Amino acid sequence: MQIQFVQAPTLKQKPADESKLGFGRIFTDYMFTMRYDRAQGWHDAKVEPYGPFQMEPSSMVLHYGQTIFEGLKCYRREDGGLQLFRPRDNFKRMNISAERLSIPAFDVEDAMAGLLKLLEVEKDWVPHAKDTSLYIRPFIIATDPFVGVRASNTYIFCIILSPVGAYYAHGLSPVGIYVEDKYVRAVRGGFGFAKTAGNYAASLKAGEVAHEKGYDQVLWLDGVEQKYVEEVGSMNMMFVLDNKIITPMLNGSILAGITRDSILKLAASDGYQVEERRIPIAEIFEAAEQGRLQEAFGTGTAAVVSPVGELCWEDKKITLSGGKIGPVAQRMYDELTGIQWGRMADRFNWILKL
Amino acid sequence: MQIQFVQAPTLKQKPADESKLGFGRIFTDYMFTMRYDRAQGWHDAKVEPYGPFQMEPSSMVLHYGQTIFEGLKCYRREDGGLQLFRPRDNFKRMNISAERLSIPAFDVEDAMAGLLKLLEVEKDWVPHAKDTSLYIRPFIIATDPFVGVRASNTYIFCIILSPVGAYYAHGLSPVGIYVEDKYVRAVRGGFGFAKTAGNYAASLKAGEVAHEKGYDQVLWLDGVEQKYVEEVGSMNMMFVLDNKIITPMLNGSILAGITRDSILKLAASDGYQVEERRIPIAEIFEAAEQGRLQEAFGTGTAAVVSPVGELCWEDKKITLSGGKIGPVAQRMYDELTGIQWGRMADRFNWILKL
Repeated sequence: MQIQFVQAPTLKQKPADESKLGFGRIFTDYMFTMRYDRAQGWHDAKVEPYGPFQMEPSSMVLHYGQTIFEGLKCYRREDGGLQLFRPRDNFKRMNISAERLSIPAFDVEDAMAGLLKLLEVEKDWVPHAKDTSLYIRPFIIATDPFVGVRASNTYIFCIILSPVGAYYAHGLSPVGIYVEDKYVRAVRGGFGFAKTAGNYAASLKAGEVAHEKGYDQVLWLDGVEQKYVEEVGSMNMMFVLDNKIITPMLNGSILAGITRDSILKLAASDGYQVEERRIPIAEIFEAAEQGRLQEAFGTGTAAVVSPVGELCWEDKKITLSGGKIGPVAQRMYDELTGIQWGRMADRFNWILKL
Repeated sequence: MQIQFVQAPTLKQKPADESKLGFGRIFTDYMFTMRYDRAQGWHDAKVEPYGPFQMEPSSMVLHYGQTIFEGLKCYRREDGGLQLFRPRDNFKRMNISAERLSIPAFDVEDAMAGLLKLLEVEKDWVPHAKDTSLYIRPFIIATDPFVGVRASNTYIFCIILSPVGAYYAHGLSPVGIYVEDKYVRAVRGGFGFAKTAGNYAASLKAGEVAHEKGYDQVLWLDGVEQKYVEEVGSMNMMFVLDNKIITPMLNGSILAGITRDSILKLAASDGYQVEERRIPIAEIFEAAEQGRLQEAFGTGTAAVVSPVGELCWEDKKITLSGGKIGPVAQRMYDELTGIQWGRMADRFNWILKL
């Protein structure tokens, strides 16, 4: 695949204070794009100046939500070099989302070539401060100017980049989680496993309700029986129970998290027993009462590991690890971020050095 | 509310052949827009030239699907005058969708003022041929340039217009319907009742599978038990069974169709018994076997009434009304379109003459 380069007339000032990057607010000078139509397939690949799309008000994505995305990061090692963490897994998962959303598949190697070319141009945007990184957001949007329900015939594939700060500025801090028993995020037969806009739109209201009640995130139950743990916010969920790490099995309504998979592999390799299975929320609360629930944490690209300090379900509340970070969450965080930032050996061959 | 008017430099050629309008492909010269931010609320209302939005690649709607829409029509009477059908009901429902999607509510009368001003400017775009109309698409999109899951702080409200042809160019023709038993559109606790992008994105795949099997539309079952009739395609579903008109009750996972409501009122006023309740798909197939199922039809703004000629569920197939249009579907279509195009008395006070 040929990738055209379009020079930006001017470049932005890079953020001077890397302690104030935040998340997802600052975008770099360039983006990667390619277009799709039925005749040419994916074509017209370019690295071009980051800037607005000219979008018809009738663009299908704005009405019918035919869109998918991914999220991954580029890390700067202490030696100054750059590296990616399992990037092909993100593009493979993006094609799984594409299939569910009736979006045409792309060639993973084309996407990789686009990403690498973009990162070559933008390498100075990868921040240097500890725990900072360059967040990478690939996405595809349906662009037919047509008001009617069918799959679009045209699409844009785009990768944008955003330098992001340390997720935990003051160390891993535990969050309070509200178990949602009214709203539902997804159901088997739906598209909960896909990284698509509708799943996130469906989650906003419950998130607001949880915030009003003083909680940081929502823990979703299954859409059918509203009994089984699914995800927390937009992260996968793990518990440490009787010294075992347990997590909901991939059932079609939760995302197959790459961080989830990495932690399961790390933990097993560290000698932990890990179990992927259906987890009734009642079992979690019962185990907590019996003193058998040791930890709970979310896993995802943004936060890596997000320890849970408190869980509220109906009228019951439990506090975990004394409201502090448990040793398993801390160890998983240290090991995974150690590999991601190149401080620890890449024993699973997850790293692509640039 | 002040509505600014921005003149277009040139106007488009209006379609010469109204038999070839199709649906949702042609857009008029102007659109109505207003913007929202937290400080000013909804503001900056204008009728301006129809044209592309400058959209940041990071616009939240493209990633997280925070968007809602409506659909209604402007009809030209035989005397040349124009009229709308229950327009305030669309804007009221749009605010119900807004609440579910954490989008700030707008003033229904502001939206009405915007629509009426737009239609005043665009009145010559309402086509003249029988059964044609001007389709009206109000929608709201989240526009914060931010990559992270939360409700947006900024929005665009927009109304675009599209002249549309007769839905049935050759009279009401029955469709074949595939009862979907794998994919799920919505579930209670989700946002099936809202007119939001994610519901339509979720439906694309099943639609494609149905088309491959030779069917026109999908009939959705409930997400929990996959036993009860929900909607057909993006229409509500009605059956004539033992001379009664039955339709799924509003349960939070189906759209509260304005056409649905209108037909229920028309039918009751015409002396039909109407029932809104849970309808097991098994009951429908059993009734068909016993010869008690007389008709089935979908209802919605685009088609008004869409008679079902064949239903396929698992390995069973039933043919309805001999594959033709049943008398109830025909009567409802004639009466409702009669009111909408001003050929019949507006006995429910549904019409707003312009």
